[in-house]
Amino acid sequence: MSTTPPKVLALSGGVGGAKLALGLQGILDPARLAIVVNTGDDFDHLGLRICPDLDTLMYTLSGLSNETLGWGQHDESWQFLNALERFGLETWFGLGDRDLATHVVRTTKLAAGETLSSVTASMMQALGIDVTVIPMSDNTVATEIQCQDGRTLAFQHYFVRDRCEPRIADIQFSGIDTAKRAPALEALLATDELSAVIVCPSNPFVSVAPILELDGTWQILRDLACPVVLVSPIVGGQALKGPAAKMMQELNMPSSAAAVAEFYQARYPGLVAGFVLDTVDSAQSDAVRALGMTPLVTQTVMTSVADKQALARDVLAFSEAL
Amino acid sequence: MSTTPPKVLALSGGVGGAKLALGLQGILDPARLAIVVNTGDDFDHLGLRICPDLDTLMYTLSGLSNETLGWGQHDESWQFLNALERFGLETWFGLGDRDLATHVVRTTKLAAGETLSSVTASMMQALGIDVTVIPMSDNTVATEIQCQDGRTLAFQHYFVRDRCEPRIADIQFSGIDTAKRAPALEALLATDELSAVIVCPSNPFVSVAPILELDGTWQILRDLACPVVLVSPIVGGQALKGPAAKMMQELNMPSSAAAVAEFYQARYPGLVAGFVLDTVDSAQSDAVRALGMTPLVTQTVMTSVADKQALARDVLAFSEAL
Repeated sequence: MSTTPPKVLALSGGVGGAKLALGLQGILDPARLAIVVNTGDDFDHLGLRICPDLDTLMYTLSGLSNETLGWGQHDESWQFLNALERFGLETWFGLGDRDLATHVVRTTKLAAGETLSSVTASMMQALGIDVTVIPMSDNTVATEIQCQDGRTLAFQHYFVRDRCEPRIADIQFSGIDTAKRAPALEALLATDELSAVIVCPSNPFVSVAPILELDGTWQILRDLACPVVLVSPIVGGQALKGPAAKMMQELNMPSSAAAVAEFYQARYPGLVAGFVLDTVDSAQSDAVRALGMTPLVTQTVMTSVADKQALARDVLAFSEAL
Repeated sequence: MSTTPPKVLALSGGVGGAKLALGLQGILDPARLAIVVNTGDDFDHLGLRICPDLDTLMYTLSGLSNETLGWGQHDESWQFLNALERFGLETWFGLGDRDLATHVVRTTKLAAGETLSSVTASMMQALGIDVTVIPMSDNTVATEIQCQDGRTLAFQHYFVRDRCEPRIADIQFSGIDTAKRAPALEALLATDELSAVIVCPSNPFVSVAPILELDGTWQILRDLACPVVLVSPIVGGQALKGPAAKMMQELNMPSSAAAVAEFYQARYPGLVAGFVLDTVDSAQSDAVRALGMTPLVTQTVMTSVADKQALARDVLAFSEAL
């Protein structure tokens, strides 16, 4: 293997981000790709430490993901969950029999004193993944949804149990003030060998924000020599997956690609150099340009493997040209 | 339901004991039967608290047990274990997908501060079991096998991982000096309403001994007004299940029903009033009588439900006649 350090850093949440990450994995030398993953969605459930975004990355990059469900593993079964129900325990979180092994392995290793970084690295390796996948932090950061009805919900309660139905007033990241970047991310940011930073099409508020706001990560990324390129998670006014568009409405933003660009520019000024919009949103290029970002209009909806690799190529070429 | 307290107390280990317990459950008013179960086999594995004998009782009494395997649940699947193997974790303990729910529920409830007694009661109830099942203690007692080769093995390592192959030098029960009887067992022994104590056909050394030796339980049982009746776990020189016969040889005893009686009389003098032998061992009746126990010769091999209930009836009638 090459000793060349990874040169492309991708920031990812769950499903949408994992698709582009898979595209990048398909076209880059493994040693050239590092993916830093949101851990704000992580939670403890039935005594297990569950890291939904890391799991989505792991299943996607190893070919284990369930394309039909859009989450979890293919050929999954539910005997555990059915048995659990007989004992009256909460079954709202879909723990498949295969998926359960992931949580048990992680929980066991964490309980033995391993860091989440170390556990993640060994688990990815066990499934044959040779790109670098880094949890954003080895410390606990917990995304909490403040609802318009006054309740505060742990993210998975909002997202899975309550199916994103509560209207959002605000979002906070408990623990983010003291959490540190994972050592591998810290080391990567300290090199001058990054050629591109790609923000995958993930939810700005709950998937990307925790990474960016962790210990000033966004300022460090802004000040790197290489450009930060962001792929809009909103296409034609809709999120392809998840509650991003609904959240934007509830947070009094239009649910548009341009509004995503506006959000980033307001909250992380100067961070995003290049903004990738879908062809259906080409009319918003000027609005993006007016914010000081360079727009790229291309096909961003990733259905096939070819789509994912094509977008990865477009984004990398765009980044090089910036 | 009757307010009558349980009148028959059965002591049980795993499979063999559970068969007679099922027979007793089939013929007694639920309020009249309490089963105290060995917890010396319990262990922590992959972060889960596993109580094999309690589980065997629970699955047997609820009709969930796997008759083909002789352990675990019927219609079990192994997706979890297969997935676990990919991560390189220990897979020697057969954790089925359904079975796993039992361990996760128990571990979650224990972690929330419930006692093992309370957890056991609610889990049994959830599966529709209406007889009383009591773990011998809410404290940890861990059976350890001292091998002739000098190693000390945790019981499940000896029993499952190493398939009972190491030769035994001695057995010890770590924690038994400070462990207390479970409150429900304590309460039961304090009443004068027990009409019979039945030691089920379980391994004398690793299933029954931990119960008897816990905080002087055997002396309390010996001093009760009602008789203690024991069903031999050795039939025709063999244990029907488990390593009892092999252990007897390694501990320099003949593997015979009479030798079981001899062991009990030497270690718990005066405890056993009635000793039940199988018809194939009828020639050993005199040897049992010579030890001061009353023998009962009957069919003790339990294959069908009818066998189990017939033995339960025989044993109860024998106890009443003593």
